[in-house]
Amino acid sequence: MKIVLDAMGGDIGLFVNLEGALLASRYFSETDTIILTGVKSEIEKHIKDKRMSFGCKIEIVDATDNVGMGDSPTKALQEKPESSIAKGLDLVKSKYADAFFSPGNTGVILAFSLTKLGRLRGVNRPALGTVFPIGKHPLILDIGATPDAKPENLYQFALLGHEYMKIMKNMEKPVVGLLSIGEENSKGSVVYQKAFELIKQDKVINFLGNIEGDDFFKNKADVIVTDGFTGNIVLKFGEGMVHWLKENLKTSVKPLPLAILGVILSIPGILGIPFFLFSIKKLLKKISYDEIGGAPLLGVDGVVLIGHGKSNPNAVKSGILNAKKLVEHNFLGELKNIFEKRSGNETD
Amino acid sequence: MKIVLDAMGGDIGLFVNLEGALLASRYFSETDTIILTGVKSEIEKHIKDKRMSFGCKIEIVDATDNVGMGDSPTKALQEKPESSIAKGLDLVKSKYADAFFSPGNTGVILAFSLTKLGRLRGVNRPALGTVFPIGKHPLILDIGATPDAKPENLYQFALLGHEYMKIMKNMEKPVVGLLSIGEENSKGSVVYQKAFELIKQDKVINFLGNIEGDDFFKNKADVIVTDGFTGNIVLKFGEGMVHWLKENLKTSVKPLPLAILGVILSIPGILGIPFFLFSIKKLLKKISYDEIGGAPLLGVDGVVLIGHGKSNPNAVKSGILNAKKLVEHNFLGELKNIFEKRSGNETD
Repeated sequence: MKIVLDAMGGDIGLFVNLEGALLASRYFSETDTIILTGVKSEIEKHIKDKRMSFGCKIEIVDATDNVGMGDSPTKALQEKPESSIAKGLDLVKSKYADAFFSPGNTGVILAFSLTKLGRLRGVNRPALGTVFPIGKHPLILDIGATPDAKPENLYQFALLGHEYMKIMKNMEKPVVGLLSIGEENSKGSVVYQKAFELIKQDKVINFLGNIEGDDFFKNKADVIVTDGFTGNIVLKFGEGMVHWLKENLKTSVKPLPLAILGVILSIPGILGIPFFLFSIKKLLKKISYDEIGGAPLLGVDGVVLIGHGKSNPNAVKSGILNAKKLVEHNFLGELKNIFEKRSGNETD
Repeated sequence: MKIVLDAMGGDIGLFVNLEGALLASRYFSETDTIILTGVKSEIEKHIKDKRMSFGCKIEIVDATDNVGMGDSPTKALQEKPESSIAKGLDLVKSKYADAFFSPGNTGVILAFSLTKLGRLRGVNRPALGTVFPIGKHPLILDIGATPDAKPENLYQFALLGHEYMKIMKNMEKPVVGLLSIGEENSKGSVVYQKAFELIKQDKVINFLGNIEGDDFFKNKADVIVTDGFTGNIVLKFGEGMVHWLKENLKTSVKPLPLAILGVILSIPGILGIPFFLFSIKKLLKKISYDEIGGAPLLGVDGVVLIGHGKSNPNAVKSGILNAKKLVEHNFLGELKNIFEKRSGNETD
């Protein structure tokens, strides 16, 4: 097995990515390979300086163009053919490598994936999925790849999400919900009403029906299907709210030193306070989006995972290991089966 | 001035609504009237039993059909012509009353408002707005009246929101943002890209451009324009998150008694702990959706405000007073001016 890691991607880049590769390599066998794409001299220097010793084979593919986190996809497509993203996806395209992971620029990875790998037969538009970090950690898709989703797209997202969760969480029949504005089908927009009917008629999908915005917190679905416009807004709203809470708790907690002083003077209390503070921190950590490894780009003809730009070595590790798991379970082959069967049915 | 209150609406109904009317009546002059629609005998009995003495005139209009919070709008339209909602809106339609407030079934109020009052000239679809309870309390609209919004609808929502905030918050030039998935116009869906251009060309609107999901928490806009599908999902997501936080804080705070015990034994600490707990509660209260009075139904030919089903007397009071303010400032007349000017331009 060969997994490509974009060694240059992310806000911090090389250091975090190589540390993540090192952690991940311990889960690979000696015959497996992690391919690092990026500036070869820098990568080699870093590995040498830090005396890194990997648990699997390492291959370095030189990539000299630099893609920044703010670069426009259109511009990158034209001007950065030698970037670590482009070269990494070339390796997947040629079947030399089995999967690609990058904590880099999402829009650029999306653009290069579509250009180089293309879409799976039967998938009209790709979906970017991410795990929602509360409750039973459902996959929500799409979160930005397809803002103008048609009913067929949403139906295909349901199939993509179904298969992804089946493999990633070893689920027999993941529960699929359609994010809308009322339980009855008649309540959504026209596109969603049509999508509801398409999903409902597919026997493979364990379809719960419509779910609403507050159902994110009620452990109802394993897969939450939405369009890239709504999904992106909801997710960013959630991130904004967590950030706001953290900032405001800091301010609210100002009178604490007085309490601590009081507690220090008393023996039983000294046990209680830190525990209480710890609980609140743990609660907010529960909903921290930074904890998530890789977001799958689903519907392209290759295994592609995208990490958060702020990924730490552990997040890079889990991104690589998620890619490994998808390859081991022949995720792409299973998806092809599902969609080819359905494309066949259409022409019947 | 005559303001109608649907005395039967809401989860609790009569008791809460009459208490709210009593509180509000103190802000009216003796020549003003609060009209109560509902079961006359029950209302009279309640007022007598509680010995309520209002600060303005009270008129009771008998309405015998009962609309439940779960009733379907279509069914209510056909079967509940004598409901407190229908009779109340009739009074606004005939210009006998100036405004209508109800903490009742939103869908039913929307349906009766459209049927009885109709739309303002130049407004194709109505918008339901609500104040977002964080930061500078922006108005977000639409939150459910128009799930399938076209670019023209979103543009009209921007004008409706602009005028509402101008009057309600005495603002010269409220800042209007369009909720989308990237700052550049090219990033939204096709509908939103077109809406962006329409809003931008209108000199009356102080248009900030696109804002994103996390900008809800960044005090960027006074008016956030969205469609009824996305707006509803985002709002319910926020409500779900606040509820989840409250539930989880309860669980997390279990070890607290130990701390309290400790603190009670110490003199300085006893001041600190309640203060700390109070801060967290205050923080969550800040984002409590229950605190908001009335959500305006904008674009219909009448002043209509809808309260939360869980409104307490204070929320009913502020709903009535918001209606009063809109009437005092000739909100409907101003809106008619704005839209008639624009309809005029169209035919030039």
